Parts: sequence; C-alpha cells; structure tokens
Amino acid sequence: MADAQDRPTAAELARVARAETAPNATRHGEVYLVGAGPGDPELLTLRALKLMERAEVVLYDNLVSDAVLNLIPSGVERIYVGKRRANHTLRQEEINQLLVREARAGKRVVRLKGGDPFMFGRGGEEIDTLAANGIPFEVVPGITAALGVAAYAGIPLTHRDHAQACLFVTGHMKDGSMDLDWGALARPRQTVVVYMGLLCLPVLCAKLIEHGQSPGLPAAVVQHGTAPTQRVVTGTLASLPELARRAELHGPTLIIIGEVVRLRERLNWFRPGETTPGTA
Amino acid sequence: MADAQDRPTAAELARVARAETAPNATRHGEVYLVGAGPGDPELLTLRALKLMERAEVVLYDNLVSDAVLNLIPSGVERIYVGKRRANHTLRQEEINQLLVREARAGKRVVRLKGGDPFMFGRGGEEIDTLAANGIPFEVVPGITAALGVAAYAGIPLTHRDHAQACLFVTGHMKDGSMDLDWGALARPRQTVVVYMGLLCLPVLCAKLIEHGQSPGLPAAVVQHGTAPTQRVVTGTLASLPELARRAELHGPTLIIIGEVVRLRERLNWFRPGETTPGTA
Repeated sequence: MADAQDRPTAAELARVARAETAPNATRHGEVYLVGAGPGDPELLTLRALKLMERAEVVLYDNLVSDAVLNLIPSGVERIYVGKRRANHTLRQEEINQLLVREARAGKRVVRLKGGDPFMFGRGGEEIDTLAANGIPFEVVPGITAALGVAAYAGIPLTHRDHAQACLFVTGHMKDGSMDLDWGALARPRQTVVVYMGLLCLPVLCAKLIEHGQSPGLPAAVVQHGTAPTQRVVTGTLASLPELARRAELHGPTLIIIGEVVRLRERLNWFRPGETTPGTA
Repeated sequence: MADAQDRPTAAELARVARAETAPNATRHGEVYLVGAGPGDPELLTLRALKLMERAEVVLYDNLVSDAVLNLIPSGVERIYVGKRRANHTLRQEEINQLLVREARAGKRVVRLKGGDPFMFGRGGEEIDTLAANGIPFEVVPGITAALGVAAYAGIPLTHRDHAQACLFVTGHMKDGSMDLDWGALARPRQTVVVYMGLLCLPVLCAKLIEHGQSPGLPAAVVQHGTAPTQRVVTGTLASLPELARRAELHGPTLIIIGEVVRLRERLNWFRPGETTPGTA
C-alpha cells in the first residue's frame, strides 16, 4: 500500500478503458465484483442477474448456492475458487491474481461472492489488486447473510423496543480462542450477528455471559438461511450451544443474539416444505 | 404484546389463508413487506420486482426512490405513507392499521420500504400488527443503505487489515443530544455506519473524539448513495462536519466512520455522470 500515491485511481482506469475500447484498440477486460446474496436465487439483484447473463467467465466459491449458479447461462465459463479453511492467505492472493489474468485476457469477468462482497467477503482485497493492476471494475452489493437470514427467520435486526444498533462480526477461531472485542459484543439494546460462528458457539456464549450478558439472553443459530433446507434453533446464551449440538446443524450458519430473537415466536412466516403465501 | 401466547403463529395463519382461498371461500388478502434497496432500481431483488408486478396495491414512503416506483405497473394502486419527522409514533400505528385494512379487503398488498425492512425500517412493528390481526405475510430483504452506499462509494465495510466488525446505528437527535452508546461506537478496528445522521454530524464527531477516537480517524458522508445524484464527502472526525456543511448536502445521507474510508482513494469506481465500465 506504500505506492498508493503513484497508482492511477479506479476512475482514471475506467476512463483509460473507455479510450482503449475505441474502434481498432485492443479490447481490455473488466471485472464485476457481485454479491450473490444468501442462497435463495430470487434474492439476487436485477443487476447481478444481468451481469451473470452477460459474463464471459464467472469465478465463484463455496458460499454461492447451486440455485444461484444454475442461473448462469450454459455457455459461460465457470471457475470454482472455493477456499480451503487452512492456507487462507495464499489462496486469496491466487484468486486476486486469477482475476487480473482473466481480465487481461480481455474477458468480461464476474466474481460472484456469497452475500455481499464488502461484508466479510474480502472483496476489498480483490478489487485493490485490480486497481493496482489497472483493471477496471464495478462493485454490485448483495443481500448479506444477516439480512437474508433475519427476514426468512422472522427476526427483525432492529426494533424500537429492543435493539437500536446492530453489530456484525465473524466467528473464526484462532488457536482455540476467538479474537473478538467482547466489550463491544456485550452491550445492551443491540443485536449481534456472528457470521460463520457455529464452531465457536460454546466459546461465544460463555464469553458473552462472562462479560456481563444475561444467560437468559435469547439467541438463534440459522443453518442455510433462505434456502429450502433452512433450519432455525432458538434458545438462550445458556442453552443454545447444547441445543445446536443436538440439532446436528452444519454450515453455512449464522448466529443472531439479542432480545429481537424472541419476536420470531410471532413473526416466523417461512416454513420450507410447506406452501406459504410467499410462493406467489 | 401481552397476548403473544394467545395469538396464532404466522405459519398457522399462512395455513388458514391457504384453506380459505379454496374454491368458493372468501378471498383473504396478504402483505409482502419488501425491501426496495438504496435507490438504484437495478439493486432491487428479483423477488421484489416480481411482487411489485403482481401487487394490487403498493404502500411506500419517502425512502423509496422514484426510479424504483417507476417499475410498478401503471394499473397498480399506490398509496404514499411518507412519515413526517414529528408525530412519528401515531403515523406508524396508522400505517400498521392501513396494511390490515387493505389486506382485509382481499388485496395482495406490497409494503415497499427503502433499504431493508428489518434494518431501521420498523418492519418488525408492521408485521407484528399483521400477525396480531391474522393477516398472512412474507418478508423480502433488501439491500440496506449501508451496503449499497459502501459498494458505490468504494468503501469496503470490513477489511482484514482495518475492520473486523461493523456497527450500524441511527443518528436521530432528541432534545439536542443523541441517544447512542458512545462506548460501543468508539472501539478500534471496526467500521461504524450511521443512518440518517447528517443533522447530528457535528455532535457525532465531537462525541467520538471525546470518547477516545482519534480526530484523524477517516469518515465520509454520502448523499443519495447509488443514485445518479450520489455525492461523497470524505474527511476526518475533526474535519468532516465543516466539509459537509460547505458541500451543502441534503438527505437521505449515510455516514461511514473508520479506517476503511481511506480505501476509497483507490477503490472509487462509481462516478455518476461519467460512463463507467458499470454501464453494461
């Protein structure tokens, strides 16, 4: 990042790309960093679908649902760049460089990321590499998992009576502990959403209680939010780890902690497998 | 809310609605609580557009952009329920009751809300009234303003090097002060997004400095995020209030505070008024 001053800006690159796509100029590629949403293909944005249909190559990873991938036209090249849990850093750099190579080959590249590309998606790192390499790009936001899961689980993330703030964090474990700002998480009148937190759920709940949250604070784990395989387990900080273990959930999952979880008793409208008014 | 136990659940209501729409039964209405996204109509979800096209009546308010409203078919009834700044509570209750009346009249009702209905949208209150009145409903998440604005302003909300958490709050003033948890806002390594905070920007920045944030912490105000009239003013906690005042911004605006704001220097790709690679 030391050379930030010397690099052309993204907008300058866009201007250069336009000039170079004039007749007789060599065609340059471009990258669209696109949020694929939480799973349900109907939660794609109009722009995401349009770009998928016009793409020449689509790079995608684990968190993009099959139902979304099925909307990519059959003639479009697909490259799976799913990350392994270990050796994360190297893989991210490989993905960044692959995007540069595909764009330099003159292709219209769509980089599909589950949820939203700027919310725990490392989208910033990918386009930073593009900017440094002179590749024009655009960012298309997506429905981040927290919003998709909340809507389909009947849990408003904010509510005048219960939560006036919402905090999003990730639940990665490192050497058996979690690198989270517990003081920030254990605040009153807010909802906390933990991405990718299933493995750390027992540590998470214990730490929140240790930092002053009530053991009776409502919490939920949602598996495959918005998909036909969605499952929701609700409990409290004290009970949820054991309830989730018994339910044998598996990822991708999302954890919601806060008084708003209680509202699901009345507001749960999505029952996969049953016909709901939502099948119109 | 005291009668929660006695109410039918939302899923039970959905079953009742299905039974009652059998041949010869009186037709019952239903409500779709739909996020309209941040402004750019291409950021609507596929499901939102489909429901708008099939609606019999659409209720909408100030935060839904004209570009989105233009996608409602001309034969569909529209009801404007924009809220006044004062007398907020009464108006919300009126909207809740209007939704009940329209659904009871047997209509397929779409309640369009700017951004996402569960993120500072009071969507929870609206469907709570529906559940209490036996009206079937569905919730469709939308691109909340924070995600739309971040993508179009080139500001990743999270980034491995700068922010591992993101906090969303609203910036309403009350009696000249702000009812916010300053200790939660003034944390390191997180991004803070303030909805509807333009009026309170000077108080906000002063309070954050008072609670230990660096006066040099980067911050941005974005007007009309994702729209052709988008404007972005960047500065620091110390400089932003004056810069925003001089720029004569007007709402809707969103404030982003954190080290990630600095990335915009390199990642800003959206320049309304110029042709960008994003016009495909």
